[in-house]
Amino acid sequence: MTAIEEMASRAKAAAAVLRTVSPALRADALNRMAGKLADCREAVLAANAEDMKEAANLSASFRKRLCVDDKVFQYMTRRLREAAELPDPVGRVLEERVMPSGLKVRRVSVPIGVIAMIYEARPNVTTDAAAVALKSGNAVILKGGSESLRTNLVLADAMRSAVREAGLPEDCVQIIPTADRAAVAELLKQDKYIDLIIPRGGKSLIRAIAEGTRIPVLKHYDGICHQYVAADADPEMAVKVVVNSKCQNIAVCNALETLLVDSALSDETLRKIASALRENGVEIRGCERFRARIPDCVPATAEDWDTEYLDKILSVRIVDGIGEAMKHIAEHGSGHTDGIITQSDDLAAEFIANVDSASVLVNASTRLSGGGDYGMGAVVGISTDRLHARGPVGPAELCTYKWVAIGTGQLRS
Amino acid sequence: MTAIEEMASRAKAAAAVLRTVSPALRADALNRMAGKLADCREAVLAANAEDMKEAANLSASFRKRLCVDDKVFQYMTRRLREAAELPDPVGRVLEERVMPSGLKVRRVSVPIGVIAMIYEARPNVTTDAAAVALKSGNAVILKGGSESLRTNLVLADAMRSAVREAGLPEDCVQIIPTADRAAVAELLKQDKYIDLIIPRGGKSLIRAIAEGTRIPVLKHYDGICHQYVAADADPEMAVKVVVNSKCQNIAVCNALETLLVDSALSDETLRKIASALRENGVEIRGCERFRARIPDCVPATAEDWDTEYLDKILSVRIVDGIGEAMKHIAEHGSGHTDGIITQSDDLAAEFIANVDSASVLVNASTRLSGGGDYGMGAVVGISTDRLHARGPVGPAELCTYKWVAIGTGQLRS
Repeated sequence: MTAIEEMASRAKAAAAVLRTVSPALRADALNRMAGKLADCREAVLAANAEDMKEAANLSASFRKRLCVDDKVFQYMTRRLREAAELPDPVGRVLEERVMPSGLKVRRVSVPIGVIAMIYEARPNVTTDAAAVALKSGNAVILKGGSESLRTNLVLADAMRSAVREAGLPEDCVQIIPTADRAAVAELLKQDKYIDLIIPRGGKSLIRAIAEGTRIPVLKHYDGICHQYVAADADPEMAVKVVVNSKCQNIAVCNALETLLVDSALSDETLRKIASALRENGVEIRGCERFRARIPDCVPATAEDWDTEYLDKILSVRIVDGIGEAMKHIAEHGSGHTDGIITQSDDLAAEFIANVDSASVLVNASTRLSGGGDYGMGAVVGISTDRLHARGPVGPAELCTYKWVAIGTGQLRS
Repeated sequence: MTAIEEMASRAKAAAAVLRTVSPALRADALNRMAGKLADCREAVLAANAEDMKEAANLSASFRKRLCVDDKVFQYMTRRLREAAELPDPVGRVLEERVMPSGLKVRRVSVPIGVIAMIYEARPNVTTDAAAVALKSGNAVILKGGSESLRTNLVLADAMRSAVREAGLPEDCVQIIPTADRAAVAELLKQDKYIDLIIPRGGKSLIRAIAEGTRIPVLKHYDGICHQYVAADADPEMAVKVVVNSKCQNIAVCNALETLLVDSALSDETLRKIASALRENGVEIRGCERFRARIPDCVPATAEDWDTEYLDKILSVRIVDGIGEAMKHIAEHGSGHTDGIITQSDDLAAEFIANVDSASVLVNASTRLSGGGDYGMGAVVGISTDRLHARGPVGPAELCTYKWVAIGTGQLRS
């Protein structure tokens, strides 16, 4: 057995225990994880300072994700405590009926089993993923970006000892203790033990993982998110929602990347939107018709409509009505998050019915498509897959179900 | 574009239409499919007679599955009409809440999109799969065993013309019109158009498909199903349930393959069970302890515990208590369907909590783990996967969901 195979096998054994323990015990483990983390504050910050030193030459945005400062640290412990408080997702009766035969049939939520998370050098994902996995009764194997390894090792140690003190197998939470890339390849082979892989990060990484394993993969691909400003949109709301969708955090998957404005909107409204974006430092890449009405835009190329910038750039296209808007989204969107700004219930309903995305919004910022703003609590990411979990992936989405049928000797005739 | 790629692309276009039509229109299409099928009765039976003639040298069980006689034909049209009557699975609000921000959030069931079914030479699956797919708003590409191709072509023609007459794109239902195996390989490449592949048939076929595609695969692996007869089981019920689990249909995935009998059961009970099985022509392969108590059993080898016989053979093992029974199931079961026969609620609860199978039964035949007996109506099979759908796969399981959030200008702060 390789070291990774042993880890996976231990995770499966831990999952078999975790599957049957009470919600209170899992909640206690989460609270102990938060407490243990707080006890290790100095060690976490020191390890992170080392990681940051090594990453001195990397980009500011990379370093920002890697950094655990006081604020991030508070956030990490808070999320663990919040996870403890969330409604328990395991053992919920999803469906129940008594058949004419007298057979009592119910569908009950149960943990998936062993989940492997492969993610960026972002230490808060280490604690978030452990929190969501444990909350839903799953054992988790964590593989964060190697630049965060020192920090992650300290975090994992703290969480494992908390889990142990709660009376659970410490292998409920494991971290791959190496930056060696071969470890990931080995992990992908463990279909005997691992039930689900959740990769986050670049599209090519996720694609490579999905192609390289027999284990089901819950993919978190990119978000080419749209807002369509309909002809009847309230101009003031449109400006606010568009600016928030684009600018509140440019580096995330539910940030706005393409704005579709109805050709019937007034020049004044278009100007207001463009000015507000520019005041926030956004470069506008406009289609020909938009540039004819709003000066000084960079011309948009065909490529722009298929680009997730994750940057202060926005492509803008004028469309003739909702049909053209929906056609553009169907052709260029990534099925992540798309919205309409309108005062018409009919237009909203048409948009909702026809736009086939994980999240469809009406008069709301694309940035709201996520666990917290949907009332789901902690999440491990936003799935762009269509199966099992679509959109935010929280504790309920890390459960599967089983059928329980209770009879009095029923037979098949 | 290859012919298969074109089919897949047309299926996607059809799915985009189908996704938005009313439940009534889909139900109408299903009823028309049943009507059209009835109109084509002679053509279906004639094509099937041809298929049967070609299959003259194949096994009786193969020919039985392939044969469309009057009874099977009635069943096929009835299932289409029944599907029309089932509750509509699309557009159900699965979850709904108003957030403190005023954002109205709901999770709504929607069709998956394009589903490819790869299955045995069993013409009733052609109509069943089309029924379940259309009921759930999905376009379907059917690839049945090549020995059933003539029959399937007639069935598909009838269903397509019914779909067209209902005002839907006929490409909602397509059949791969060739016995050429390369067509399947080509189908597996269509991840741009196909959202889900459901393979049925032999384990090696399913495994090969799962390994050869980037498209999500809902696997229908084997059922090594167990009944554990606890020490306190009602002997009469035990005999009836065991015999029904094993003998009602030996060739299906939820038939009993291994019987676990508690060592505390009386010799008389064991004898009754063994006699009843033998009266039904079942060969018993017993463990050493069972053979010491019941004469004339074939000795079970290690291999027997991991074998899905699909035949009149049953392996029987004596276990000391529920713990050993559950351990055996965890080690040798396939997570399909496992049951306990007991009069104790506590034992039943322990079994339910610890046995990690898609269906866990108490005092009921394993043969009841299926769509009809669970009240799900038509199903395309029984999934042994843990993700998305576990156990019977009916119209609701061929749906995914999307999040719809309706606001009044909500922003992320």
